[in-house]
Amino acid sequence: MASFDSTEHPHRRFNALAGEWVLVSPHRSKRPWQGQQEETEEENRPAYDPTCYLCPGNTRVGGEVNPKYTDTFVFNNDFGALTADVPTGGINEGGLLRAEAESGICRVICFSPRHDLTLPQMTTPAIRKVVDLWVSEFQTLGARPDINYVQIFENKGPMMGCSNPHPHGQIWAQRTVPGEPAKETVQQLAYFQEHGRTLLADYLQLELEKKERVVIENEHFVVLVPFWAVWPFETIIIARRPVQDVTQLTDDERDALADIIRRLTIRYDNLFHISFPYSAGLHQRPTDGQEHPEWHLHMHFYPPLLRSATVRKFMVGYEMLGDPQRDVTPEFSAGRLREQSEVHYKGVPA
Amino acid sequence: MASFDSTEHPHRRFNALAGEWVLVSPHRSKRPWQGQQEETEEENRPAYDPTCYLCPGNTRVGGEVNPKYTDTFVFNNDFGALTADVPTGGINEGGLLRAEAESGICRVICFSPRHDLTLPQMTTPAIRKVVDLWVSEFQTLGARPDINYVQIFENKGPMMGCSNPHPHGQIWAQRTVPGEPAKETVQQLAYFQEHGRTLLADYLQLELEKKERVVIENEHFVVLVPFWAVWPFETIIIARRPVQDVTQLTDDERDALADIIRRLTIRYDNLFHISFPYSAGLHQRPTDGQEHPEWHLHMHFYPPLLRSATVRKFMVGYEMLGDPQRDVTPEFSAGRLREQSEVHYKGVPA
Ligand SMILES: O=P(O)(O)O[C@H]1O[C@H](CO)[C@@H](O)[C@H](O)[C@H]1O
Ligand SMILES: O=P(O)(O)O[C@H]1O[C@H](CO)[C@@H](O)[C@H](O)[C@H]1O
Repeated sequence: MASFDSTEHPHRRFNALAGEWVLVSPHRSKRPWQGQQEETEEENRPAYDPTCYLCPGNTRVGGEVNPKYTDTFVFNNDFGALTADVPTGGINEGGLLRAEAESGICRVICFSPRHDLTLPQMTTPAIRKVVDLWVSEFQTLGARPDINYVQIFENKGPMMGCSNPHPHGQIWAQRTVPGEPAKETVQQLAYFQEHGRTLLADYLQLELEKKERVVIENEHFVVLVPFWAVWPFETIIIARRPVQDVTQLTDDERDALADIIRRLTIRYDNLFHISFPYSAGLHQRPTDGQEHPEWHLHMHFYPPLLRSATVRKFMVGYEMLGDPQRDVTPEFSAGRLREQSEVHYKGVPA
Repeated sequence: MASFDSTEHPHRRFNALAGEWVLVSPHRSKRPWQGQQEETEEENRPAYDPTCYLCPGNTRVGGEVNPKYTDTFVFNNDFGALTADVPTGGINEGGLLRAEAESGICRVICFSPRHDLTLPQMTTPAIRKVVDLWVSEFQTLGARPDINYVQIFENKGPMMGCSNPHPHGQIWAQRTVPGEPAKETVQQLAYFQEHGRTLLADYLQLELEKKERVVIENEHFVVLVPFWAVWPFETIIIARRPVQDVTQLTDDERDALADIIRRLTIRYDNLFHISFPYSAGLHQRPTDGQEHPEWHLHMHFYPPLLRSATVRKFMVGYEMLGDPQRDVTPEFSAGRLREQSEVHYKGVPA
């Protein structure tokens, strides 16, 4: 029998950041697909939509009127999953029925007044304004004693449950640290205690030596398809300097973050010539008053598409009951993203 | 301020079985939805489809011909994510790039020769044949020294990535124990060591006292919406007797399992008058040669729909980066399922 070859044989990869496994089945990428196909109407949205509750000057569901903002705009989500005024309390019956009140704040961030744009169609200075807003929001929310974690994210596209095409992201800030960053804290802390360096600093160095999963770089950030990526075209943006959160970024680093987000999302759009759906978000230190030197700022991109604009990866059945599973290898996906142009297929918006 | 009320206030619930949290936002179920709507063409499938690779007598992609089976039929998946003949080996660079060869067997189980049926449209004796096949497959696969876990599951409906509407399920059997059952082992073992009873036996008793999350019962099984359910209409079937796997079920218990699956899936279909999509699967003891007295057989149902046949719950953004989140409470969902009829809305198939 031939020796083990990770480009051919089924194998499991360990997610060193979250402490979990993913099943990789490279041989399976050739299976025929007769299942659900996604719709891809290429919409031509107007720059201003009078019925959009995120456009400047429009009235929201709750009756509030948006200012005539010219770059970014942030407000409290009218239907937030978390609210600040929750009475404390809970339930605990034998450890089997256990609940705790949870308080928090949900914010909505409009990336641009233009209803028809998305991040890859915005200029770097315009994206930099979004980065600046992330910084100030993280600072303000994180400083509150009742907020111990600040999750900044974007759901892009109807396939990702986004209910309004106006370019926007969200922030859910809350009392407890959610499961995903909690797992990453455990893994990063164990590594830091053993090595005195952050897990992602060492991981990044390894990846920069190997090159096979690196997609793009600039002076301060690197984009790669993680060795343990679950989604077909999942990527991670890692800061070269091991900072714990966005407030520590220098002026140059903020520009560089805007630059790399723009270049990555253009490549995504160019991959299947579609406004590429994803959920993306920053992972940063908990805002629990501790220093967290083990934490290393990064941003995850989880796109659902697999083979084309219409065939997605379903995380169902085995994935829900067993482990996440992928067909194409992370190395293959990195290659596909590397070969994309950084000029948007639709050209520069007017 | 009023005191904490789990039907009104955002809270976290602890999944005692998996050791994880879910965020519950009951107040949020009223938010408007303008996002993606699913399609629901009510298809009228023929009893036999000459182009279906699962129908009796038809030729599969690999050239094999299906027998003219009359109840169930099982074969090795022509595009299995796992294969048995994988050379051992792996990678480990500083714990950061870690992979291991994984071997296993993927099987496909046709539930019925009839292309036009689904489990809720089959008779109890016909579903009992499916249960019998699960038993014999678990026995044969689990006895192999290279198989330490046997995952039996079904993806139902295109929304759940099912690529062929012919009623069928799958089995992925493999060398290692996947993440989900591994987490459940940890939780169940800790509980069993402390109490000398299985976690699910005690949990079931609590639920039977409270009644608020119980959906249906028969002599040997109970269906309920778990206290910690993530999906809007998620349910779990729990065996009253703490058995570790399906091979331990008596003749009566096998009948009762078929009965309760039929009744539950009819209620699901009746909820929105649609062939209700879900991923479902049995969780059982690892087949690693240990006895696993801590393990308690159960079956999870994870349906994606939220409010109607066309509005689904998206597990995106916050859910991928933070914690799973739900709007309607498990108690509300249990009530909705309890009020459904057990006569299928389409009547009895011809
Ligand atoms: O094996 P199938 O039915 O072709 O594929 C389906 O089930 C698998 C196991 O849950 C998933 O990995 C696939 O994403 C899904 O499309
Ligand atoms: O808050 P939105 O955009 O209305 O809702 C969207 O994002 C949320 C956070 O990821 C998810 O819980 C919802 O399922 C999704 O539809």
